[in-house]
Amino acid sequence: MKQLRVGMIGYKFMGKAHSNAYRTLPMFFPEAMKPEMTALCGRNKEAVTEAAAQLGWSDVVTDWKDLIARDDIDLIDINAPSDVHKEIALAAAKAGKHIFCEKPLALTLSDAREMLQAAEEAKVAHMIGFNYRFSPAVKLAKKLVESGRLGKIYHFRAWFLQDWVMDPEFPLVWRLQKEIAGSGSHGDLGAHLIDLAHYLVGDIHEVIGMSETFIKERPIAEEMTGLSAKGSKDAPRGPVTVDDATLFLARFANGALGSFEATRFAAGHRSTNSFEINGSLGSVKFDFERMNELEVYFNSDEEDVQGFRRVLATDPAHEYAEAWWPPGHTIGFEHTFIHEILELTNALREERLPQPNFRDGVKCQAVLEAVERSIDERRWVEISEM
Amino acid sequence: MKQLRVGMIGYKFMGKAHSNAYRTLPMFFPEAMKPEMTALCGRNKEAVTEAAAQLGWSDVVTDWKDLIARDDIDLIDINAPSDVHKEIALAAAKAGKHIFCEKPLALTLSDAREMLQAAEEAKVAHMIGFNYRFSPAVKLAKKLVESGRLGKIYHFRAWFLQDWVMDPEFPLVWRLQKEIAGSGSHGDLGAHLIDLAHYLVGDIHEVIGMSETFIKERPIAEEMTGLSAKGSKDAPRGPVTVDDATLFLARFANGALGSFEATRFAAGHRSTNSFEINGSLGSVKFDFERMNELEVYFNSDEEDVQGFRRVLATDPAHEYAEAWWPPGHTIGFEHTFIHEILELTNALREERLPQPNFRDGVKCQAVLEAVERSIDERRWVEISEM
Amino acid sequence: MKQLRVGMIGYKFMGKAHSNAYRTLPMFFPEAMKPEMTALCGRNKEAVTEAAAQLGWSDVVTDWKDLIARDDIDLIDINAPSDVHKEIALAAAKAGKHIFCEKPLALTLSDAREMLQAAEEAKVAHMIGFNYRFSPAVKLAKKLVESGRLGKIYHFRAWFLQDWVMDPEFPLVWRLQKEIAGSGSHGDLGAHLIDLAHYLVGDIHEVIGMSETFIKERPIAEEMTGLSAKGSKDAPRGPVTVDDATLFLARFANGALGSFEATRFAAGHRSTNSFEINGSLGSVKFDFERMNELEVYFNSDEEDVQGFRRVLATDPAHEYAEAWWPPGHTIGFEHTFIHEILELTNALREERLPQPNFRDGVKCQAVLEAVERSIDERRWVEISEM
Amino acid sequence: MKQLRVGMIGYKFMGKAHSNAYRTLPMFFPEAMKPEMTALCGRNKEAVTEAAAQLGWSDVVTDWKDLIARDDIDLIDINAPSDVHKEIALAAAKAGKHIFCEKPLALTLSDAREMLQAAEEAKVAHMIGFNYRFSPAVKLAKKLVESGRLGKIYHFRAWFLQDWVMDPEFPLVWRLQKEIAGSGSHGDLGAHLIDLAHYLVGDIHEVIGMSETFIKERPIAEEMTGLSAKGSKDAPRGPVTVDDATLFLARFANGALGSFEATRFAAGHRSTNSFEINGSLGSVKFDFERMNELEVYFNSDEEDVQGFRRVLATDPAHEYAEAWWPPGHTIGFEHTFIHEILELTNALREERLPQPNFRDGVKCQAVLEAVERSIDERRWVEISEM
Repeated sequence: MKQLRVGMIGYKFMGKAHSNAYRTLPMFFPEAMKPEMTALCGRNKEAVTEAAAQLGWSDVVTDWKDLIARDDIDLIDINAPSDVHKEIALAAAKAGKHIFCEKPLALTLSDAREMLQAAEEAKVAHMIGFNYRFSPAVKLAKKLVESGRLGKIYHFRAWFLQDWVMDPEFPLVWRLQKEIAGSGSHGDLGAHLIDLAHYLVGDIHEVIGMSETFIKERPIAEEMTGLSAKGSKDAPRGPVTVDDATLFLARFANGALGSFEATRFAAGHRSTNSFEINGSLGSVKFDFERMNELEVYFNSDEEDVQGFRRVLATDPAHEYAEAWWPPGHTIGFEHTFIHEILELTNALREERLPQPNFRDGVKCQAVLEAVERSIDERRWVEISEM
Repeated sequence: MKQLRVGMIGYKFMGKAHSNAYRTLPMFFPEAMKPEMTALCGRNKEAVTEAAAQLGWSDVVTDWKDLIARDDIDLIDINAPSDVHKEIALAAAKAGKHIFCEKPLALTLSDAREMLQAAEEAKVAHMIGFNYRFSPAVKLAKKLVESGRLGKIYHFRAWFLQDWVMDPEFPLVWRLQKEIAGSGSHGDLGAHLIDLAHYLVGDIHEVIGMSETFIKERPIAEEMTGLSAKGSKDAPRGPVTVDDATLFLARFANGALGSFEATRFAAGHRSTNSFEINGSLGSVKFDFERMNELEVYFNSDEEDVQGFRRVLATDPAHEYAEAWWPPGHTIGFEHTFIHEILELTNALREERLPQPNFRDGVKCQAVLEAVERSIDERRWVEISEM
Repeated sequence: MKQLRVGMIGYKFMGKAHSNAYRTLPMFFPEAMKPEMTALCGRNKEAVTEAAAQLGWSDVVTDWKDLIARDDIDLIDINAPSDVHKEIALAAAKAGKHIFCEKPLALTLSDAREMLQAAEEAKVAHMIGFNYRFSPAVKLAKKLVESGRLGKIYHFRAWFLQDWVMDPEFPLVWRLQKEIAGSGSHGDLGAHLIDLAHYLVGDIHEVIGMSETFIKERPIAEEMTGLSAKGSKDAPRGPVTVDDATLFLARFANGALGSFEATRFAAGHRSTNSFEINGSLGSVKFDFERMNELEVYFNSDEEDVQGFRRVLATDPAHEYAEAWWPPGHTIGFEHTFIHEILELTNALREERLPQPNFRDGVKCQAVLEAVERSIDERRWVEISEM
Repeated sequence: MKQLRVGMIGYKFMGKAHSNAYRTLPMFFPEAMKPEMTALCGRNKEAVTEAAAQLGWSDVVTDWKDLIARDDIDLIDINAPSDVHKEIALAAAKAGKHIFCEKPLALTLSDAREMLQAAEEAKVAHMIGFNYRFSPAVKLAKKLVESGRLGKIYHFRAWFLQDWVMDPEFPLVWRLQKEIAGSGSHGDLGAHLIDLAHYLVGDIHEVIGMSETFIKERPIAEEMTGLSAKGSKDAPRGPVTVDDATLFLARFANGALGSFEATRFAAGHRSTNSFEINGSLGSVKFDFERMNELEVYFNSDEEDVQGFRRVLATDPAHEYAEAWWPPGHTIGFEHTFIHEILELTNALREERLPQPNFRDGVKCQAVLEAVERSIDERRWVEISEM
């Protein structure tokens, strides 16, 4: 495989991030397989044409089935709303296309499993968009855990705090509707935390959760783009059918204790995606709003100079950093996607499964649903039940 | 009541903090009723005599019953280990003495209730040592919540992280033995978080928890002072009978969601007693390791300059601050006790109940035990059950 | 002018940043005039050909005179080493090409003035690469100063701290040779601080400085790329002829006091480009290692909640932010260049001079040289002398 | 010498801090020689009597000459306004009393030298109140420098930023009058920075400075206490005769470069007394507003985890810490004075000169005046000139 011909469905927030990643990869990672931005798919011909021009796609289609049917496409990139992931993925797998799907993989665990099975049976490559794994600072955390430099893990605590829908007049967008989004803060934000937990600490054994919808009705949205939307106070109102906040406790298979919180009602937090890991030999802390930094503590430091170090993950010793700028020159949110596409193309060239893939999507979905069940049934739920 | 004649039982970590508070109060708060440090009580005559000389107590006794029997004492200050709180408090109440008791009030909720009842029946003043309420930054948080400047409260999350017993060879001290300490991180650290939650957000409706003892056996301690201790690797080992870490979720009566974590296994955290409150109009964050600071966010700030403010609570606008040093000159841990004694003496003079008192101790104990029950029975427990 | 056909000279650190900016601009700022990456110039045919392929340039030339002679080029982008800026810029102006030149404009003030005069006489557009102006957080600082929200400015203090040549065995690269680089930390790092001072506070009236070369001899470099280089301990040594650190005091025309420090010997600082401004109504602080943040203080805040706010300049209220990602999703170093090219293309379309331009380069050079003179003559030097 | 009988002159801000230190020392440092608070001196009988009662002094006198004449006093503690330091100190020395004098030692270098000479000739102990040396975090910095763990020192930069007189209507208090205060921010704040520089880096070779009085006239104060004061807008105005801000560059005898800034016009800075030291092996940063912390960086850290560590100087490994509270429990401003008195009493018992003493006061004064001369004469001034 010398090149990767991509057909992408969706071109809003995630679509823009993916497009930028495909386009930028060859410049900073010239050794990587080069993605071809073959065709962009959207239902509105005019809008998708304009988007394709802006984002750098060679062609457009308005029906995703046509996209999948094309011979000149190797990979289907799915970043349409979550409710259509499954149908597209199944069709893509059937057509023998590799699949890169945004998270959450599907609206339900059973859908997610079906997608995984389809991809495995079709022997296509599959990847899921847990992009935060690809921050250099997160990679450093992974390296410290995996190499044993933090020792046995005792605690993982994580929170993803946002405040974008706190205004009760913020309109009822698709992300607030269960039938399209699947869930609210839980699936949107918590899913990232769960994946980071899996990545950094390992499997979760059991969970118990709690959730709340603070604002139960909102004016129906008239227009939305990315995370922003327009509405009017006089618009008719509809029910918010997803959670505004979901918290849960978890016990990991390795005995570590976990605490998770996802909320869209934390005033002052635009996007605080943060975790801390405490091990027997040291600790690390991460906050996505300062995504170039990892705070690191080692018990073994000399006793008069023990303290959390603010490590700026921009040195040659840090993954991806040398491809970018000199030490101290930071990168941003979008770079996580570029590194993600690097992994995707490397895996394809090396004929191995990309990381993270649909298995990780299924695992994440199992925890998401176990938490929901634990909330519904007000009891601890083991993941193995699911 | 013109003066407050104090008899104190215990003279280690807390005893030192209390002594310093009694001694220092008149210098910085000259308007306050002046405490007389009448007698110090400890079982070892030589040791208590030395302590009294150092800490500034006029007399010593070796049997707390003698202390309570004295006519020249108005207040009994109990900072002996938790397992003797009840017996002393009951006797003190019976003798008509006011009582200032360190937390936790007792080892069990029923004991705590008995103590409250005894104090109320005896019509003595009673106070409990939740000293963190008395940080100027915490007082500021209280003021912002109470005045409505944070709006309706959605979230309270709190963690008290320490690392002092992470070394598996750290000896088995009384704080690690259930029969003396009642519980481990939960009662020692979590109790403070619960009290802050009560103080800042209000009553808790229901809880569910999880706990763990990571190191199950330790060498028996040969000697201990405050939080430090000496042991040897060859010492016989005994079981750790308290929790190393306890986490729980809570739903407040007012609808807010709470998350609590207390652990002694968070490497790099000497004493991170931290909370965050998110309301509909703003948020606050506190970390005791930077106890002079409160981070404050208001939704109503102009849109281009919204952000958490680092407020140094040392200005005349901040409670207690003017009694101390000019703005920007910080105070420390011990000052929380001085402010606590200020409240105690002011309440006595004003013939009102000090805040916090045994009712708060009982409320805290109810939550502590509800969490323990929720752990034992693996289910949500309502506080009203207790 | 509908398009901007660019010919660029140089393709290392800055060349990569510029290429990325030209390439990325249309995707995120689709309204902007679109740059065409027409030709890349470098002396080594093979290397420049490879670079052009990687960076996205359509053609290559090996002699910059040929580049300037081409009809199909509107703008010459000069990011070759500083010692050749002048000759190229003069030729480009003569040929009627617009010019975008990296800083420092030239090795001497008289050269810089000659370049400005040439560009003005030729009536071509000219811009200089002071990219830090284009951080959204810096733009916010500018807005706060300019709108009067900080009041009268009393203090500007700035430091650009790096540590990349602290190792005495780091080789003697061109940036450490006066005849190529002009100066060391002063022209490389201090120049950025001076430009920010001009931009944010205004003209400097007089200066006095101090400098030092801590490591006076180094092994001659065998190879260098960007800021990194290879050498060997056994390599012959040559003298370092530039400053490792330069500090100076300044008095601004408006009465503000300035303090500047540029050094490559600040252990732990990879690239701390930081400033603080104190005005009669408030203050701002910036640190490039956290380039998405501006700390902002207002005297007018209510007296119990005064404190520096950590403003994350990623909201729609912040310049450029809406073109990128949702609030809380940060951008990086390279984005300053994209915003710089946006200004360049907008200015060309609006037929106005881009900001900053050669006049700013000359002003900066005047201060740089005034500082050097003040060091040589050990006296205060007024900028008007220069 | 078994006890230290103290007579103190002055009882405002510094007098309170000293009194608290004398009173608290025996409780936390029981091994230390115990100070007796024998007599307090102030001109107003009623006021000094009230102060003595509050602060714990046994007796009062209204004429400092009477204090010095008393047989029952070993040490004269001078914290009266700076203009009377000299006369008192000379008399105290003549009377054979040990002397503890607040900084600045005197209004002029020649006065300071006279005081040092008098103390040395009288063979009395002498100490000067540079209290910031006694922060545990500063002690840690000293230890790291002295033990060579930071290597050769390249840079010292320090700033003491306050904002207490920014309001143009803040009254004309004695600290703003040259004849009483000697100088403004320079002698009040800069003096502390200079002493820290001497303590941590060594002798200063030469300096050049700049200063400004931003608000040149103010309403005459009607009343003042500590740093606060009352005035009225209609009060007659008088000229401010001291500097609001003074900056200077310095070259140390060991080749390090220094940068100093003291200002009372830095909005948002209540008392930012901050320094950074960069050495060939590492760096440290300190900010008094977070006085329990020292940021520490070592070049020798493993390359993937290099970063400034936030060391909380409350561990047993840190000077003074064990006398106070468990790790993580912080101390405040006033504790620096307690440690200072510990040094004073230890030195007296050990029959050695306390550190810092009048020699340090003279050295500091020499730099202060050299800076002033450098400002007046607009040239570099060597300290050896003074």
